[in-house]
Amino acid sequence: MSGPDYDGLFRKGVPTGTARFTGFPKYNFVGGHNEPRQIPVEALAEAAATALRREGAGLALYNLGQGPQGHQGLRDLVADKLGRHRGVACTRDDVLITSGSLQGLDLVNDLLLEAGDTVLVEELSYGGAISRIRARGVTIVPVALDDQGMRMDALEDALAGLKARGITPKYIYTIPTIQNPTGSILPLDRRHKLLDLARAHGVPVFEDECYADLIWAGNDAPPALYALDPAQVIHIGSFSKTLAPALRSAYAVAPWPVLSRLVSLKTDGGTGAVEQMLVAEYFSKHFDSHVGALSGVLEDKLRCMVEAVEREFGSSVECFVPKGGIFLWLKLPDQVDVRKLVKPAAERGIQFNPGPEWACDPEAARSQLRLCFALPSKEEIREGVAAFARVCFEQTGVPQHSDNRRNN
Amino acid sequence: MSGPDYDGLFRKGVPTGTARFTGFPKYNFVGGHNEPRQIPVEALAEAAATALRREGAGLALYNLGQGPQGHQGLRDLVADKLGRHRGVACTRDDVLITSGSLQGLDLVNDLLLEAGDTVLVEELSYGGAISRIRARGVTIVPVALDDQGMRMDALEDALAGLKARGITPKYIYTIPTIQNPTGSILPLDRRHKLLDLARAHGVPVFEDECYADLIWAGNDAPPALYALDPAQVIHIGSFSKTLAPALRSAYAVAPWPVLSRLVSLKTDGGTGAVEQMLVAEYFSKHFDSHVGALSGVLEDKLRCMVEAVEREFGSSVECFVPKGGIFLWLKLPDQVDVRKLVKPAAERGIQFNPGPEWACDPEAARSQLRLCFALPSKEEIREGVAAFARVCFEQTGVPQHSDNRRNN
Repeated sequence: MSGPDYDGLFRKGVPTGTARFTGFPKYNFVGGHNEPRQIPVEALAEAAATALRREGAGLALYNLGQGPQGHQGLRDLVADKLGRHRGVACTRDDVLITSGSLQGLDLVNDLLLEAGDTVLVEELSYGGAISRIRARGVTIVPVALDDQGMRMDALEDALAGLKARGITPKYIYTIPTIQNPTGSILPLDRRHKLLDLARAHGVPVFEDECYADLIWAGNDAPPALYALDPAQVIHIGSFSKTLAPALRSAYAVAPWPVLSRLVSLKTDGGTGAVEQMLVAEYFSKHFDSHVGALSGVLEDKLRCMVEAVEREFGSSVECFVPKGGIFLWLKLPDQVDVRKLVKPAAERGIQFNPGPEWACDPEAARSQLRLCFALPSKEEIREGVAAFARVCFEQTGVPQHSDNRRNN
Repeated sequence: MSGPDYDGLFRKGVPTGTARFTGFPKYNFVGGHNEPRQIPVEALAEAAATALRREGAGLALYNLGQGPQGHQGLRDLVADKLGRHRGVACTRDDVLITSGSLQGLDLVNDLLLEAGDTVLVEELSYGGAISRIRARGVTIVPVALDDQGMRMDALEDALAGLKARGITPKYIYTIPTIQNPTGSILPLDRRHKLLDLARAHGVPVFEDECYADLIWAGNDAPPALYALDPAQVIHIGSFSKTLAPALRSAYAVAPWPVLSRLVSLKTDGGTGAVEQMLVAEYFSKHFDSHVGALSGVLEDKLRCMVEAVEREFGSSVECFVPKGGIFLWLKLPDQVDVRKLVKPAAERGIQFNPGPEWACDPEAARSQLRLCFALPSKEEIREGVAAFARVCFEQTGVPQHSDNRRNN
C-alpha cells in the first residue's frame, strides 16, 4: 500500500515540501519574533479567563454571532487606538479583523491583483509582501527610498512612466511608519505629496502599519495616510508586534466598497474568537502602558545591537538605525554577497534575513541584511553578532578590522 | 476626496461586497453552529489561564517556536483521539493543525487542483466544499448515495467512465462518517471497496471527518479510511463541532509527501496559538466526557426536531434521520422549490440551508433542505419548524395537512 503517484497529481508549480522542523537556531535574528520576557503572561491569563467567563458561550456561534468583520470589542479597540495614536477617525464598522496581517495582504491582493498587473513597491520592502505579489505574476515597479522613506520624486517619475505606457498600477504599497526594513518614518509633507500623486493617477494606496505602534519615545509619527484621506487608502495593522506574533490578530481598515469585498473574500469561517476576545480584554486596559514599556525594552536592545555591530564590523558596516520596531538594517561592503553567508552562518547557529529577500531588485541588495533584535537577549545579541562577524570574515575577508581586535 | 475608481481596479470575477451584518435570525437552522449552553465556559476559562501561565511566554515566537505544524500538545491530542476513536495509528509528526477545516480544504485543493481538473464528490455534500471546487474551475463528477453513504457501484462506474475518457480524477472527496448532509455512516465493507477502487485507479481519497466524533451512543462507526490505508488518504477533521466553531481549530493528517507540501502552502504565519493551547489543555482532560454529554444533548434535540417536522409537515416530508452530528436533511414534495422559500422564510426570521447549495447537481436537490438543530433551543425548534411549515404552505400549498391541524 504505497499510495498514489502524488508527484504526478500535484498541480503545476506547487512548492517543495517543508523540511521537518528541528527548532530555532541559537542566534535567531530573523522574522517578527518578539521579546518573550515582555509577554504579560499573568495578565493574559487573567484576561483570557475574564473574557471567556463573560463571552465564552458565544463561541457556539461562528464569529461569536457578531458578524464576519470580527469581535466588536476588538474592532472598537482598533478604532480607538487608531484615533488616539494615528489620527484616524473611524468606527468598528470600518474595521475587519484578520488572522494576522498576512491575511490582510492576501485579501487585498485577492481583491485587486491578477497576473499581468503592475504595482508600486518601495525598493526595499517586506519580503512576505514582495513574494506574495510575485507569486501572482504581478510586475513590481520599485520606488527609491532615502532615510525619510519613499522619495516623492521617484514616485512621481514611476507613475508618470507607467502612465506614458498606458498602465494604471493597482496600488502603491508603502510602509510609511517604521519602514520595513529601513526603519524610517515618512514626514508629513511627503505623506501629503504621496496622496496628491495617488489621487492624480487614480491609484489606491496600500498602507501597511504593522510596526507603527512601536516608536521610540520622542519620535512621534505624522498621522497615518488613511487618516489624511480615507477614501484613497487601504490600511492594515497588527497586534503581532505589540503583543505577540503567535497570536494571529490583525486588522484592515478601508472604505466600505473595498472592505465589504475583503469580507466576502475572507472565506475562512472567521478569525479565532478566543484570541480576539483576549486581545480586546487585555489591550482595552493596558495598550499604552504595555506598548510604552515594550518600546523602551526594544530601544535598549537596539542600542545593544548597534554597539555590537559597530564593535564587530567597524567601518565595514553601515547601520540604518530605526526609529522604532524590532529590526536593524545593515549594509556591508559591495564585495560581500550575504546569500553566501546563509549556510555557514546557520552552521554556527546564526540566522538572519538576507537583503535580497527584502528587495524588489534582489541583486541590488546583495550586500544588505536585516537583523531582528526583539527575541534574543542582550547577551545573545553580543555573542551572535560577534559570531556572525567571524563567519563573515572567514567567508569574505570582511570585516578585516574591528574596534577591539584584528580578525586575521 | 472620493477615492479611486475601485470598481475599475478590482480583479475579474471578484464577489460582490458583503452586506452589513444585522444579527442572526430568530430561528437559525443554518450552518455549523453549536449548542451555547454546552460550551464549558468555566472549564475553558480555567484551561486558558492554566495554559497561558505555563506556555504564554512562547507566544513571542511564531508557532510558539514549535514549528509550522502547530502546537505539539494539540498534535499529540489529535493523534491520541484518532487512535482511540478512529482506529488511526499516527503521531504528532503526521498532523498539521489548521485554522478550521476550511483551511484544510483550501490547502488540499491548492495542492492538487487546477482549472480543468476533475474530482469525484458524493452527489450531496458539504456546500463549502462544492463551492470551493467550483471556484477553481474544476469539474465535479457526482457519485450516488444511499442510506449507507457512497454507493460503490456508482463509484466504480464513475471511475471506469473517467478512465475510458483518459481522465484521472485528482481525488475522491467523501464524508464517510456522518455524511454531510444525509447523516449516514459508511459500512466497513464499503470502506474497503472504496479504497480498493482508489488504489486500482491511482486516485487519492480526501476524507472529511468533521462530524465523526459526534455519533449517537450505539452507532459506533468503522475505522476512518485513513486508518485502513494511510498512504492512500488525506484526512481532515475539526474541533469546531465537538467544542465550538468560533474557535478555529482543526487538523489534517496525511502521508509526509503530501503533508509537508500542505505545510509549505500554509503561508499564514501559523494558526492562532492561544486557541491551540486552550483546546489541547481542555480536551486532554475532558474530550470523552464533553463529547459524550454533548452528543446526548444533540440527539435529544434531533428527536425534538424530527417530531416537530413530522408534526408540521406530516406525510409531505421525508426525514433522513442522522446517526450523529448537528443537522437533519429533509425532502419535500417535488413541486416545492426550496430556493423560493428562502426570502419569505427570512421575513419570518427563519433561515435554513437550501438543498441546491449542498448538491453537485443543484436542480436535483431543489426540494431538499438541511436544518441544523444544535443552536436553537427545543422551544425554538418547535416554533421555528411550525413557522417554516406555514411559510411553505403559503408559498407552495404544501404541507396541506399536518398531524395536528389543517393549514388552509
